[in-house]
Amino acid sequence: MYFHEDMVARAVEQSGLRGVLAEGIIEAGDEALGERMLKESVKFAENFNGYADGRVTAFLGPHAVYSCSRELLGKIREKASELNVGVHIHLAESRDMVKGFEEKHGLSEVEFLNNIGFLNSDVLAAHCINLSTRDMQILSRQGVNVAYNPVANMKLGLGVPKVKDLMGLGVNVGLGTDGAASNNTLDMFETMKVAALAQKALYSNPKVLSAYEVLRMATVNGAKGLGLEEVGSLEVGKKADIILINLSKPHLKPLHNIYASMVYSARASDVETVIVNGKILMENRKVKSLDESLVMEKAEKAAFNLLSR
Amino acid sequence: MYFHEDMVARAVEQSGLRGVLAEGIIEAGDEALGERMLKESVKFAENFNGYADGRVTAFLGPHAVYSCSRELLGKIREKASELNVGVHIHLAESRDMVKGFEEKHGLSEVEFLNNIGFLNSDVLAAHCINLSTRDMQILSRQGVNVAYNPVANMKLGLGVPKVKDLMGLGVNVGLGTDGAASNNTLDMFETMKVAALAQKALYSNPKVLSAYEVLRMATVNGAKGLGLEEVGSLEVGKKADIILINLSKPHLKPLHNIYASMVYSARASDVETVIVNGKILMENRKVKSLDESLVMEKAEKAAFNLLSR
Repeated sequence: MYFHEDMVARAVEQSGLRGVLAEGIIEAGDEALGERMLKESVKFAENFNGYADGRVTAFLGPHAVYSCSRELLGKIREKASELNVGVHIHLAESRDMVKGFEEKHGLSEVEFLNNIGFLNSDVLAAHCINLSTRDMQILSRQGVNVAYNPVANMKLGLGVPKVKDLMGLGVNVGLGTDGAASNNTLDMFETMKVAALAQKALYSNPKVLSAYEVLRMATVNGAKGLGLEEVGSLEVGKKADIILINLSKPHLKPLHNIYASMVYSARASDVETVIVNGKILMENRKVKSLDESLVMEKAEKAAFNLLSR
Repeated sequence: MYFHEDMVARAVEQSGLRGVLAEGIIEAGDEALGERMLKESVKFAENFNGYADGRVTAFLGPHAVYSCSRELLGKIREKASELNVGVHIHLAESRDMVKGFEEKHGLSEVEFLNNIGFLNSDVLAAHCINLSTRDMQILSRQGVNVAYNPVANMKLGLGVPKVKDLMGLGVNVGLGTDGAASNNTLDMFETMKVAALAQKALYSNPKVLSAYEVLRMATVNGAKGLGLEEVGSLEVGKKADIILINLSKPHLKPLHNIYASMVYSARASDVETVIVNGKILMENRKVKSLDESLVMEKAEKAAFNLLSR
């Protein structure tokens, strides 16, 4: 969920990447603002779901339970079902927000969403750090998908969600980096390792989250949470979204266990080739779909331009 | 602290790297074994301190308080002072070991070491996860140096030490990776980021450990903890131990704050040139002092040979 998602969709088209995008909706007590943002989010979904040869998938993007009214959330739920698109929402992220919400409403964020019929398997809830056991049971029962963002959660001092408990209840948990505002590198290899480390530390148990489970969270579980049935694993009939990794690096020797090596030793810089939808986007670390140095130059200019205002 | 440190010293010589090495001493209830290992550790220190143009520094390496007797620790303390070398020891690493030690001796590991006069500024204590406030005060008063190993501590499910509290009391804390048995990548960039993340999560505060502090922990503090006065920062009169980093990478753009970029975005793979003691060891990512593919091949063969026994 971000803003100006039409521009992001065009970047996804040019780059050849795949993207699940949601135009954010924040009401923040201003009903007219909420209505306008809902309209924009719906318009984006109508115009861009399936865009770029199906590489763009649209979701609706209500920001959070505390920043959207019950009425607005109800309309978003209806619209998502009508358009048959998923819903992305931030859930139980900060302890203070969660406490504040409970004091005001007498219900947890999860209970509230459940009561208004918002939760089902098309919902992808980000963070889920501060959940009660009852909250977890509701998420499990409703088939809600969770995006665990270990690096951002820790960097912001928000804590570590009980991912082992969630997965033990059968909740589908995928891995996320969160956006560039709350993380510095949107790097799935780093995310896998930090996820494994944080969970082992939280439960004081080195056996929590095996490397194989972590790799599944970054691939199959993530695809499922995003409603992408055709990617996430290499299988006949699925789309060819593939990375090739150079195993001839000192930090990948000796190679005893490919899962452990991928989660604990491999780095984004070991990825030599990227194929999305059957098309080679990077080969031998050379990006083929974009002019890499031009993009870097433009990004830097835009950033310093913003800072100078 | 590891074993066969004479061989490690020779590898340090060939590679051109700098190394502070300690031959491990483990008694484990066997007095004769302890005596023999002490002798080996002392012999290593006598033969190799200052070896390879001063790039090898020797420490004595008692494994831990619970695996060496009071008598042996006393002898090690005497020998270290006599030889004027540092002492490396594991301290307060696992909660169970710490509890077991306290039940047996009525004292914490730190109190015990303090009582026998073991602790002073030539001691580098690894881990220090399970410390009381009194323990921390003792470490501060005695000028003991601490090596914080965030990745290994988390991977083994041992927890996260209170580094902010330790540093607040003036304790010198440097960063370590721990050995290859408890970590997969001996990568100081990854270690800096995980250290910052783990401390922010532990204290529920994004302001704990600034990027600048973390960079100091990985450089100046580390050098101080190892008793290396001539490295750790770029200054007239210090040894030329320098890395050059390629800043023209997408994940390092835009560059607002060099400290934040080094801690949160840079990777080991961004290091293009390594200079130790004024000699270029790697240039444009090509290792000049060793045959990289031969080393990888030999390491792989040795590993699979070991596994097949």
